[in-house]
Amino acid sequence: MDLLSIKDPSFLKELSNKELEVLSKEIRQFLIEKLSVTGGHIGPNLGVVELTIALHKCFDSPKDKIIWDVGHQSYVHKILTGRASQFDTLRQYKGLSGFPKRNESVHDIWETGHSSTSLSAAMGMAIARDLKKEKSYIVPVIGDGALTGGMALEALNHIGHEKKDMIVILNDNEMSIAPNVGALHNILGRLRTAGKYHWVKDELEMLLKKIPAVGGKLASTAERIKDSLKYMLVSGIFFEELGFTYFGPVDGHSFEDLFENLNYAKKTDGPVLLHVITKKGKGYYPAENDRSGTWHGTGPYKIETGDFLKPVNAPPAWSELVSETVRKIARKDERVVAITPAMPVGSKLEGFAGEFPDRMYDVGIAEQHAATVAAGLAVENMKPFLAIYSTFLQRAYDQVVHDICRQNLNVFIGIDRAGLVGADGETHQGVYDIAFLRHLPNLVLMMPKDENEGQHMVNTALKYDDGPIAMRFPRGNGIGVPMDEKLRTIPIGTWEVLREGKDAAIFTFGTTIPMAMEAAVLMEKQGIAVKVVNARFIKPLDEKMLHAILNENIPIITVEEAVLQGGFGSAVLEFAHDHGFHEAKIDRMGIPDQFIEHGSVNKLLEEIGLTTENLVLKLKTMVRKKQKRAQ
Amino acid sequence: MDLLSIKDPSFLKELSNKELEVLSKEIRQFLIEKLSVTGGHIGPNLGVVELTIALHKCFDSPKDKIIWDVGHQSYVHKILTGRASQFDTLRQYKGLSGFPKRNESVHDIWETGHSSTSLSAAMGMAIARDLKKEKSYIVPVIGDGALTGGMALEALNHIGHEKKDMIVILNDNEMSIAPNVGALHNILGRLRTAGKYHWVKDELEMLLKKIPAVGGKLASTAERIKDSLKYMLVSGIFFEELGFTYFGPVDGHSFEDLFENLNYAKKTDGPVLLHVITKKGKGYYPAENDRSGTWHGTGPYKIETGDFLKPVNAPPAWSELVSETVRKIARKDERVVAITPAMPVGSKLEGFAGEFPDRMYDVGIAEQHAATVAAGLAVENMKPFLAIYSTFLQRAYDQVVHDICRQNLNVFIGIDRAGLVGADGETHQGVYDIAFLRHLPNLVLMMPKDENEGQHMVNTALKYDDGPIAMRFPRGNGIGVPMDEKLRTIPIGTWEVLREGKDAAIFTFGTTIPMAMEAAVLMEKQGIAVKVVNARFIKPLDEKMLHAILNENIPIITVEEAVLQGGFGSAVLEFAHDHGFHEAKIDRMGIPDQFIEHGSVNKLLEEIGLTTENLVLKLKTMVRKKQKRAQ
Repeated sequence: MDLLSIKDPSFLKELSNKELEVLSKEIRQFLIEKLSVTGGHIGPNLGVVELTIALHKCFDSPKDKIIWDVGHQSYVHKILTGRASQFDTLRQYKGLSGFPKRNESVHDIWETGHSSTSLSAAMGMAIARDLKKEKSYIVPVIGDGALTGGMALEALNHIGHEKKDMIVILNDNEMSIAPNVGALHNILGRLRTAGKYHWVKDELEMLLKKIPAVGGKLASTAERIKDSLKYMLVSGIFFEELGFTYFGPVDGHSFEDLFENLNYAKKTDGPVLLHVITKKGKGYYPAENDRSGTWHGTGPYKIETGDFLKPVNAPPAWSELVSETVRKIARKDERVVAITPAMPVGSKLEGFAGEFPDRMYDVGIAEQHAATVAAGLAVENMKPFLAIYSTFLQRAYDQVVHDICRQNLNVFIGIDRAGLVGADGETHQGVYDIAFLRHLPNLVLMMPKDENEGQHMVNTALKYDDGPIAMRFPRGNGIGVPMDEKLRTIPIGTWEVLREGKDAAIFTFGTTIPMAMEAAVLMEKQGIAVKVVNARFIKPLDEKMLHAILNENIPIITVEEAVLQGGFGSAVLEFAHDHGFHEAKIDRMGIPDQFIEHGSVNKLLEEIGLTTENLVLKLKTMVRKKQKRAQ
Repeated sequence: MDLLSIKDPSFLKELSNKELEVLSKEIRQFLIEKLSVTGGHIGPNLGVVELTIALHKCFDSPKDKIIWDVGHQSYVHKILTGRASQFDTLRQYKGLSGFPKRNESVHDIWETGHSSTSLSAAMGMAIARDLKKEKSYIVPVIGDGALTGGMALEALNHIGHEKKDMIVILNDNEMSIAPNVGALHNILGRLRTAGKYHWVKDELEMLLKKIPAVGGKLASTAERIKDSLKYMLVSGIFFEELGFTYFGPVDGHSFEDLFENLNYAKKTDGPVLLHVITKKGKGYYPAENDRSGTWHGTGPYKIETGDFLKPVNAPPAWSELVSETVRKIARKDERVVAITPAMPVGSKLEGFAGEFPDRMYDVGIAEQHAATVAAGLAVENMKPFLAIYSTFLQRAYDQVVHDICRQNLNVFIGIDRAGLVGADGETHQGVYDIAFLRHLPNLVLMMPKDENEGQHMVNTALKYDDGPIAMRFPRGNGIGVPMDEKLRTIPIGTWEVLREGKDAAIFTFGTTIPMAMEAAVLMEKQGIAVKVVNARFIKPLDEKMLHAILNENIPIITVEEAVLQGGFGSAVLEFAHDHGFHEAKIDRMGIPDQFIEHGSVNKLLEEIGLTTENLVLKLKTMVRKKQKRAQ
């Protein structure tokens, strides 16, 4: 059928299983073709084609609430809810989002991006439904990876206790992003291999009767066994213990199996957990056979071969540089241990893990635990390297405050994907870390200007012995500077003047340094000399340099690819006013008070005005004002 | 024995069970007496007397690592590690902390205050131990309440998978702070009533043989039963499924039972979970019979009667005012639902719960889940009131960012215990919320000047329909102003001039307003007229008033009982510079860049210089400078 003509999922009700199978094939073909051009989360979506169709056939969205955990697996849902025609713009500026968005469709009832939120959201919706005395099914769809996130486990505990009606779809593809870890993963594995066990009550009764009564010492044992049997014969005892009715395992690529079990689930009171087995990348050979997570999300690829047009998981040279430098240092310092919450691939820790299998821990999607494991290691004089994306560090804020900074422990936090990240959009922009870390006592926070300084900063961090130290670095690649052979350390709290100038100064760091240098060159052509400062330590500030420059009494502009409120620029304002420089002319550029959607980083920077052009404009205005005052 | 003479726990090795029982009695007597004067966490500590003694007898601290989750139950540990003589100073300024502190003793190897961190810390220490090829026992002690915290569950999942040697003591007293909730609680309840089951392997084999072989339809069923039996006969299957060896339940007040099981545990490879049943308040009648949580932590009390000398859980008039106002509004607005993460007592929600049992959810110690349940409710047009302490909101930072603010949902966050909290010390000071919330788009953040404005703000929040809105309020009582009969709303983003003055201005809010008014009166006596502004909206600022006052070009001092970096004062600096008031003389007073220890709030304010005296001094200096410049 013509996928572009789909307006809403109601047409599914009329289709036979055979027809649905044809539709599945068409959707797979569509996804493989479209994503080969735009890139996107191909693996997860190929895995849930039948499941998504089955859910939209069995339930009435949006009256029934289908909630996509993480949400990168919502492409099929988007096709079935009338958005196929927008796939050419997927994850592009002003185009279709790669995640559920409430402003895209009434069928997107809950927005996601970060993992493990769906069960809590479902619980909120279930409470609301029952208070309003409405009837509807609430159907969170959560992966086996996301299930290990602490908040999902908190939710299981609460839902199982409250016994709210809800059908949790556990989409078990044996992977989170990388292959899955954790005891829950083992439990699911046992359930998968155990196979389905359709218990017939009569059989059980008969069998129990065959156990002879025993007396004496064994009497209580026998009683206990009889009591236990009914319970044990139910599969999924782990979930049953938590108060869920477990159905499964279900073949997530068989409509027959899906419908049978979904219909059971609909008739069951209280919370149900439907364990559905799917295959990531199903129906596209390269993705289906990927065991490392490469095909979780990709850039464009050649359909016939599965070759990536641009290198995929685009060689995040920054992640690589950082993890490889950590690895180099780990060869000499046995105390170095790497921790990642489910991002061994994204954080490019495969090399480290290969060389030091005992010193690398992928803890699964569990950012809070990851941070405090690092703290525990530091208490024992190890040198933990916590590799974590800026946006996911948000999940561990309290652990950074309470466990790491408060105890002043030597944890090195490598904050990856800091700044705008582009296509993943507003849930993933790494723009808050400065604002949520800068006020924490004891923490050193820095960002290098290029990959060479980056390697020295990694070395600085792992040599540093006075407490926690964090280095932010951006998504993507370095800028191609020559690399020093020998690692050195950078004195904490020291900035660097990259370019002298007596008329104005730019304070900036990391990705916005090239913009500052460009602006300075442009200004020079107009006879205005602009100092450019690599403010590589966001905390502590370089107080000596600040005093010196503030004493020059020249206009200062701070530039940062991070939120303005409470950010680096505010730190400079605070310093100036705290030290009596009340007349300092300080302006700030950065990310305004709004969530920044998906799109290429350059487009986004343009949208928010974080451009060389604007910087030049601001500099000119400030210098002109000053000249006026001087007249 | 003389408890004051104890230097370290080594003396325990020589004592018989009988002698240990005598010691337990002495420790209980000591605690009941000391805490009747100082107040403190009496209930939890009376519950773990025997357990703590047994741990220190069975293990060699600090070589073996005993890790106290939350840490309020560490008083007995403090006595046994040589700190009995300091109990007169418990929780007082420069006195003994109510939580483990690494600078107090080598036996305090991990600091706590927030719950659920012990297992992650233990995992970090276990990894370190094994890498260093050391031998030691690692023994986290976690309550059944703390176990439901997401990070503890993340840790269980990881520890069970990695199979690290570790002995987790589950201290099950059937309460967290209030009575416990959640499916895990039900699981523990079943284990408690099931009783201990000492399995003898021979018995099992014999019994299995008695099950006759069956053919035909039943063959596979019978096989499955036989396979299951061994597994089922082990108690604590929930924990066994997670990869732990379960021992228990153990009578936590019987040395015999404790030693037997601890010794089993020591001989067991891999992670062990030892389920110990204790009674909160054991040995002191009023505390032992408390079912609501009143005796969890108390002020001074009369030993003979159990009457509190000062009202205990000191009638937190602020919590009461807020929850009772919410309750009043809930009578008219059916959409209002209250959510608390385990703090129904602290947040004074008992009245609300009594009147609206279906509209009040205590989700247990699960702040992340609590925040996102509120978001889920808001999606369905309910009006969730999330009652949460400032310090615990840190745990839900990402949920506030990603689920609440990003989706711009109508959640009312009541931020209790904002500002300094006193005796609980550095883990509990509510001083970060402004800095970690102010940079979030869509959020309104406010703090009332007194309880009358407080009730109107609650009303404002529940009437507000444009997104998330948060109100901070302090620990303790209001200031005794008359209360309006009729609730009104306060226009968002409007401040209020409390006192006019043309020479300088103080911008402040909440608890520091009286200080500002006092300072203004003192200044007036010296002929200087100070304006005092109730800056009740921290976000958005009152831009109109800011423009007006900045145009007056008078010195401004911002005062806040919150961290300075990125705080309210910084918001004012940002505003001034963003709007071209580069010459504004703005100084800030607030909490400096350090963790603030325990002590009375007044002592602490003095220590950090947040006093009327300093405010006056600062005002004088600024005004004088201005006069000089004017000359």
